[in-house]
Amino acid sequence: SARYSNEIYKTANMPGVAVGLAWTYVGGDILFIETLLGDGKGDMKLTGNLGNVMKESASTALTYLQANARKYSIDPELFSKKSVHIHVPEGAVPKDGPSAGITMLTSLASAFTGRKIKSYLAMTGEITLRGQVLPVGGIKEKVLAAKRAGLKEIIMCWQNEKDVQEIDSDFIKGVDFHYVKNMQQVLELALS
Amino acid sequence: SARYSNEIYKTANMPGVAVGLAWTYVGGDILFIETLLGDGKGDMKLTGNLGNVMKESASTALTYLQANARKYSIDPELFSKKSVHIHVPEGAVPKDGPSAGITMLTSLASAFTGRKIKSYLAMTGEITLRGQVLPVGGIKEKVLAAKRAGLKEIIMCWQNEKDVQEIDSDFIKGVDFHYVKNMQQVLELALS
Amino acid sequence: SARYSNEIYKTANMPGVAVGLAWTYVGGDILFIETLLGDGKGDMKLTGNLGNVMKESASTALTYLQANARKYSIDPELFSKKSVHIHVPEGAVPKDGPSAGITMLTSLASAFTGRKIKSYLAMTGEITLRGQVLPVGGIKEKVLAAKRAGLKEIIMCWQNEKDVQEIDSDFIKGVDFHYVKNMQQVLELALS
Amino acid sequence: SARYSNEIYKTANMPGVAVGLAWTYVGGDILFIETLLGDGKGDMKLTGNLGNVMKESASTALTYLQANARKYSIDPELFSKKSVHIHVPEGAVPKDGPSAGITMLTSLASAFTGRKIKSYLAMTGEITLRGQVLPVGGIKEKVLAAKRAGLKEIIMCWQNEKDVQEIDSDFIKGVDFHYVKNMQQVLELALS
Amino acid sequence: SARYSNEIYKTANMPGVAVGLAWTYVGGDILFIETLLGDGKGDMKLTGNLGNVMKESASTALTYLQANARKYSIDPELFSKKSVHIHVPEGAVPKDGPSAGITMLTSLASAFTGRKIKSYLAMTGEITLRGQVLPVGGIKEKVLAAKRAGLKEIIMCWQNEKDVQEIDSDFIKGVDFHYVKNMQQVLELALS
Amino acid sequence: SARYSNEIYKTANMPGVAVGLAWTYVGGDILFIETLLGDGKGDMKLTGNLGNVMKESASTALTYLQANARKYSIDPELFSKKSVHIHVPEGAVPKDGPSAGITMLTSLASAFTGRKIKSYLAMTGEITLRGQVLPVGGIKEKVLAAKRAGLKEIIMCWQNEKDVQEIDSDFIKGVDFHYVKNMQQVLELALS
Ligand SMILES: [Ca+2]
Ligand SMILES: [Ca+2]
Ligand SMILES: [Ca+2]
Ligand SMILES: [Ca+2]
Ligand SMILES: [Ca+2]
Ligand SMILES: [Ca+2]
Ligand SMILES: [Ca+2]
Ligand SMILES: [Ca+2]
Ligand SMILES: [Ca+2]
Ligand SMILES: [Ca+2]
Ligand SMILES: [Ca+2]
Ligand SMILES: [Ca+2]
Repeated sequence: SARYSNEIYKTANMPGVAVGLAWTYVGGDILFIETLLGDGKGDMKLTGNLGNVMKESASTALTYLQANARKYSIDPELFSKKSVHIHVPEGAVPKDGPSAGITMLTSLASAFTGRKIKSYLAMTGEITLRGQVLPVGGIKEKVLAAKRAGLKEIIMCWQNEKDVQEIDSDFIKGVDFHYVKNMQQVLELALS
Repeated sequence: SARYSNEIYKTANMPGVAVGLAWTYVGGDILFIETLLGDGKGDMKLTGNLGNVMKESASTALTYLQANARKYSIDPELFSKKSVHIHVPEGAVPKDGPSAGITMLTSLASAFTGRKIKSYLAMTGEITLRGQVLPVGGIKEKVLAAKRAGLKEIIMCWQNEKDVQEIDSDFIKGVDFHYVKNMQQVLELALS
Repeated sequence: SARYSNEIYKTANMPGVAVGLAWTYVGGDILFIETLLGDGKGDMKLTGNLGNVMKESASTALTYLQANARKYSIDPELFSKKSVHIHVPEGAVPKDGPSAGITMLTSLASAFTGRKIKSYLAMTGEITLRGQVLPVGGIKEKVLAAKRAGLKEIIMCWQNEKDVQEIDSDFIKGVDFHYVKNMQQVLELALS
Repeated sequence: SARYSNEIYKTANMPGVAVGLAWTYVGGDILFIETLLGDGKGDMKLTGNLGNVMKESASTALTYLQANARKYSIDPELFSKKSVHIHVPEGAVPKDGPSAGITMLTSLASAFTGRKIKSYLAMTGEITLRGQVLPVGGIKEKVLAAKRAGLKEIIMCWQNEKDVQEIDSDFIKGVDFHYVKNMQQVLELALS
Repeated sequence: SARYSNEIYKTANMPGVAVGLAWTYVGGDILFIETLLGDGKGDMKLTGNLGNVMKESASTALTYLQANARKYSIDPELFSKKSVHIHVPEGAVPKDGPSAGITMLTSLASAFTGRKIKSYLAMTGEITLRGQVLPVGGIKEKVLAAKRAGLKEIIMCWQNEKDVQEIDSDFIKGVDFHYVKNMQQVLELALS
Repeated sequence: SARYSNEIYKTANMPGVAVGLAWTYVGGDILFIETLLGDGKGDMKLTGNLGNVMKESASTALTYLQANARKYSIDPELFSKKSVHIHVPEGAVPKDGPSAGITMLTSLASAFTGRKIKSYLAMTGEITLRGQVLPVGGIKEKVLAAKRAGLKEIIMCWQNEKDVQEIDSDFIKGVDFHYVKNMQQVLELALS
């Protein structure tokens, strides 16, 4: 219910926590990506029962962010002076695939800038090393899960717009969609 | 019997030893999480026949504690000057899953603060990197095992309260339940 | 369509991004190789769901480029002062085999020299440590995929010329072929 | 025969060699745990065809001993200035399980203190990080094997006493049993 | 054809490239071993889809060469100041077995001395750490492949001479055989 | 034949090369253990298609030799200033088991002392960390293989004497047997 969801997003109201959309064998679901920075030497720790492709998304996101640090007003030295821990809760559920890429990058960017992520915002999309956003599968199931959880905005690749148009519009009333081509657009929408 | 249990908790009366609840193929059981700190460089050793998800819980707990060190009055330098060994006895039994998360964090917090954990207290719940407590499965079996072992208080996620209400109240007379939302509540209850 | 393809190559218009040709179970396809350099100590990170043989191609390409740095006007010290991340998008698709060798070397050379790669150019071919280009399989499928994607020039090994000659010339009108023996020829054609 | 056994224990008469009891698919057996310290940096090497649980026992024993070094009059600096090699002879036989825990700790304590272990003494029991001794299985088979080998004293967990009482007393005449709760009791009995 | 082969050996005319003989499921074949030295710390990289036994051959060859550096007029300090990359082209073909040992050692010796390897020369044989050459299998298939490729001299172990004598002499007209006992003989024949 | 064997042992006439006895699926066989020391930091490399138990034998042998360096007149600093490479020729044959232990220790002791090993001498036996020699299997097959290869002396554990006595004495005429209890006896017999 909306009450439960509100509860979640209030507690999530700290930098480094982003909401993604997953497509599992039981249908669509929302998932949180949590990033914490600590003192370190640029090492990255990944937890939450993640498969190799999902781990590679995190690695790709970190390299992209480091290469574009100045564009996002991040001190480049942080990447060698901090350790990065990314966790995806619900350890009992195996997670994999590239579709959490933009959520991971947003979580990282939020943690490195200290800027919170907009409330009631979810996203799904693969990332490339040069910062493009690629389309992903399971859009219908993901969007309906976001709606059920009380989320109000969703970011995805412009090439997924056609998948949203196939959903009955009654089911997604009140949800705003943002179709993007690159990570810069994602971060402008997501970081407050 | 109660006599046997008393015996156990007396010997366990040192910082770093927490009591968790597990759900195995033979039913519910209690398990101990033992943490010892030594001189080191922030490395963590995990023993006790633990699966990957359970190891990730320990890693997540350590990152959370380090990021919130000052809140819990822990000298942040300890995390780079100590080695951490977490052991879960009964090496013949494979153990896995995220539900020992809050027990591991409590064991770590006890070892890092030097404060003992309340006697006759057990707990079960998944942890997130931002310190939330998530619900877990097997509540009925775990609670009955805690009762059999003579434990008197149990901490779990507020979303598991409904699972406790389904247990016949005669079976859990004398056991106090604490329903929590985050790790700060757990540590306030657990550390004396 | 051509419109979609143009879009892709415009956004790809930065050093380090090369277009390769792959032969998958669904036929020919184009793939991008993206290289980003960061501060580091000569370490290489490879992502994109790559098999061992494809990873070895990247390693071989890097060693060749380092050994021939002066020939390509690259400061040899970069190889110990930079980290290299090579990513191949579309993480959901496993990729393997040696045929991306010349694409990887071109991507690396572009990143290390800062020179962009010619637009609408694709390539396929195995590389050796001494800089030869070796023939690969699946030429017909790869060439047709390049044509469909709007690419205009293709580089491959001179020993693959016979495979191109077997394709109906109507299907490849407007595509120029470059048959090469070694990497020096590839880089002269590819780097602007 | 006794003659053969005497021979064994005479040659074993050096610090670091402890006698354990194992329960294999052919019945009970004795096994030796050998520890040698060398110059090093606190690293531990484990050989003798050991499974992961048995390796974890050794790791747990080492952490316990380091944390309790002063109690046993061991210079704490040895743990960072020595390398530890633990070997369990008969490499053709795979060995696993937690029951060699107290034997490993005794072997380590003997090597670190330079004190020899009492002759004709065997032991079996799991260890915890806080130094408790836990009960193990296969007591009858292990005890009979110890008797056959000419051993005269056996240390085990007080919770295994009931298993010894089930053995026909004629079979174990001349063997003394020591039932213990913690490692301090084990080391007081074992180290001369 | 001979024309094609000549082409290959001309381009191979640089230090570090040696021609070996392999015996695959499709019969005999020639293979190239390529070695490049770079700035480093004595580390060795092996690529080309090699199995463990073949990798061990390379390791054995490098240790032998280092131990006998002065005999072959190699500055011993090179072994700690250079990195070694050995590549065996045709990454799509898995390769294994010890028979490339002498080819690997010759390739390494050529790279470390800067002396080219004789043209139109192939070789096959296992190496030992003390520099002996051991016999290998598949001699008939390997020799015929060398002949087809236009090679003119072949080095192998003296214990393989009997295998050559069983080949119809019409098939190997114009090929010279060198039967050797140790690596010193191989390198005297191979390095110009 | 004897002629062939003589040839082998003459070329083997350098420190670090020891002759062992193996028991394979085709019967008994001899095997060589070759040790070369190089400049290094105490690291050990093992090649020759060895299984884990055989690798552990080498590790155990090295620790024993280091701990007993002075007894065998070896400068203890060599163990941290040298790298050790142990190779067992015939890479096509997988090798495993603990029975090469004393051969490995003899090979190591020969390499570290610079003293050659007696000619025409073979050995088989497991080693313990405290220097005992343990009995091994396949004695009949191993002894007959040694005889066929022209070897004249064999060292083994005193507990294997009964296995030699079961062999028809006509088959082993001219072979001397040495039955030992510990490594000191082995090295006194083997090192000239
Ligand atoms: Ca969920
Ligand atoms: Ca997502
Ligand atoms: Ca239990
Ligand atoms: Ca628990
Ligand atoms: Ca594609
Ligand atoms: Ca390609
Ligand atoms: Ca035994
Ligand atoms: Ca034991
Ligand atoms: Ca070929
Ligand atoms: Ca070869
Ligand atoms: Ca043989
Ligand atoms: Ca042997």
